[in-house]
Amino acid sequence: MGATSTKIGVVDDNGKVLDRAAVPTKGQTNINKFIDSIYDAAKKICAPHGGISSMEGIGVGAPNGNFYTGDIVNAANLPWKNQTVHFADLMSKKFNLRCLVTNDANTAAIGEMEYGAARGMNDFIMVTLGTGVGGGVVCGGKMVYGHDGFAGELGHLIVNRQDGRACGCGRKGCLETYCSATGVARSAKELLDTSKDKSLLRNLTTELTSKDVFDAAMQGDALAQKVFAFTGEILGEALADFIAFTSPEAIVLFGGLCEAGDLLMKPVKESMEKNVLSLWRGKVKLLRSQLPQSDAAIMGAASLIRNASRQ
Amino acid sequence: MGATSTKIGVVDDNGKVLDRAAVPTKGQTNINKFIDSIYDAAKKICAPHGGISSMEGIGVGAPNGNFYTGDIVNAANLPWKNQTVHFADLMSKKFNLRCLVTNDANTAAIGEMEYGAARGMNDFIMVTLGTGVGGGVVCGGKMVYGHDGFAGELGHLIVNRQDGRACGCGRKGCLETYCSATGVARSAKELLDTSKDKSLLRNLTTELTSKDVFDAAMQGDALAQKVFAFTGEILGEALADFIAFTSPEAIVLFGGLCEAGDLLMKPVKESMEKNVLSLWRGKVKLLRSQLPQSDAAIMGAASLIRNASRQ
Repeated sequence: MGATSTKIGVVDDNGKVLDRAAVPTKGQTNINKFIDSIYDAAKKICAPHGGISSMEGIGVGAPNGNFYTGDIVNAANLPWKNQTVHFADLMSKKFNLRCLVTNDANTAAIGEMEYGAARGMNDFIMVTLGTGVGGGVVCGGKMVYGHDGFAGELGHLIVNRQDGRACGCGRKGCLETYCSATGVARSAKELLDTSKDKSLLRNLTTELTSKDVFDAAMQGDALAQKVFAFTGEILGEALADFIAFTSPEAIVLFGGLCEAGDLLMKPVKESMEKNVLSLWRGKVKLLRSQLPQSDAAIMGAASLIRNASRQ
Repeated sequence: MGATSTKIGVVDDNGKVLDRAAVPTKGQTNINKFIDSIYDAAKKICAPHGGISSMEGIGVGAPNGNFYTGDIVNAANLPWKNQTVHFADLMSKKFNLRCLVTNDANTAAIGEMEYGAARGMNDFIMVTLGTGVGGGVVCGGKMVYGHDGFAGELGHLIVNRQDGRACGCGRKGCLETYCSATGVARSAKELLDTSKDKSLLRNLTTELTSKDVFDAAMQGDALAQKVFAFTGEILGEALADFIAFTSPEAIVLFGGLCEAGDLLMKPVKESMEKNVLSLWRGKVKLLRSQLPQSDAAIMGAASLIRNASRQ
């Protein structure tokens, strides 16, 4: 479930997405009507596969989704922003199926464990680098939900206490103010403002995005390359701290920013190795998601059901 | 097991320490002779309780103890400092009992979960404030050992990346350079050197310790009080980050520095609440260990066996 639309898929036991649909999320202030529209779309794509009643369950990845309660709680970018929506409950009644909910970083982690880069791993950390930065922590083969279901807010660990950037959460210096797509654009703007270096980014006529920074870097733009080096350095420092916390076998990176490939991965890896406690130097894998990007969200959500039925 | 001596105890099912003994650790370069001396001491204190063969197992808390392998690995302050000692294996053979090993912060955490402040909790974080700073992370009722058995090195998360203090680990700015007993003494020395403020600590004829800082603070010494406020602020900032990681029900503090009571706990609590993501503000308990200090190490080690037999 995203702010704009909600993707729906029929997924088989092997994680293959058999059919897809989407309904708008934006403007759906009436939650029951929203669920009706999901039901109608799901019914169509389930029909060739035995119908809704033959499905094992419904997995949902939603912003601020709580695994324990099945609620979506105060999600700033959804139509019910200051409310608690009993989403799993409502879905479960409508579909007569088990419904499990968690946030999208957690579904990404479970998806990776079931079908992707973390197959066979008991201990790993997922970091999603999108508009914001999300985290999913797996320890001993289990997703860490914490006491209240909201564990893994890795984008809100503080990486700069001295003069950190203002974050949407109201605090300063959060990881996501630097290492998200938005953070990359912010770094580029700062560098353009505080230096007189030439850059292709000075010619833009639209609002600068991380994609612009990537494109410029790939064309050899030194300032844009510097932005990725800076982003990678900060992310690597943070990952080194994450390692000391739960000692994962691997850290898996996922999300739009990973499309930058080596431009990002190389400085991240260097910084992580430079900053990690010697005990772990050269021992923790840094991986990119292995789920096909177009289906990753759906596979991740579906894996919630597969994972739960195995525990 | 400490650098100076190894404490041994007979512990019943309720965590009561029935009998105690100790053997020196220092100078025991021959591991087999060391284990013989532990055996002889244990035999004596087990005799009134049915003898060694009637014990359920042996729990060991040792620096750099690895739960998965039972080894003690490169422990800088033990006589086998650059070696891997197969401690659990050797003990198990000698005693003909199951032997489990982990580091002392983890035994402290399990002890607290079985007998202390964290009874009934599934998600909490233990932070030990001694000569160094150690961590034990419990998620979903299970100790987090991580991929290699060394998870929870919370004393080595970086709290100052700008001009952090040199740490024994070779890096700079680790939490334990500020919030350990050693860190407190270091802060006091820095403040004495960089200010001209009057302080009882200027009259010391011996090497300044955290205990001196505590005593002076209790006598109203403003500089010493400032040291605890500074220590608490840094620790609170770090705990706020820990909360975002695993969303614990409580953080339990343990170790010598906690003896400072409110002098430390008050600024820690204030700083933690001020710095934590609003989602958790006012919701995570900050507790002190509830194990009797003299027996805490032995109870913690014994709880390894009790905890394992329950899983």
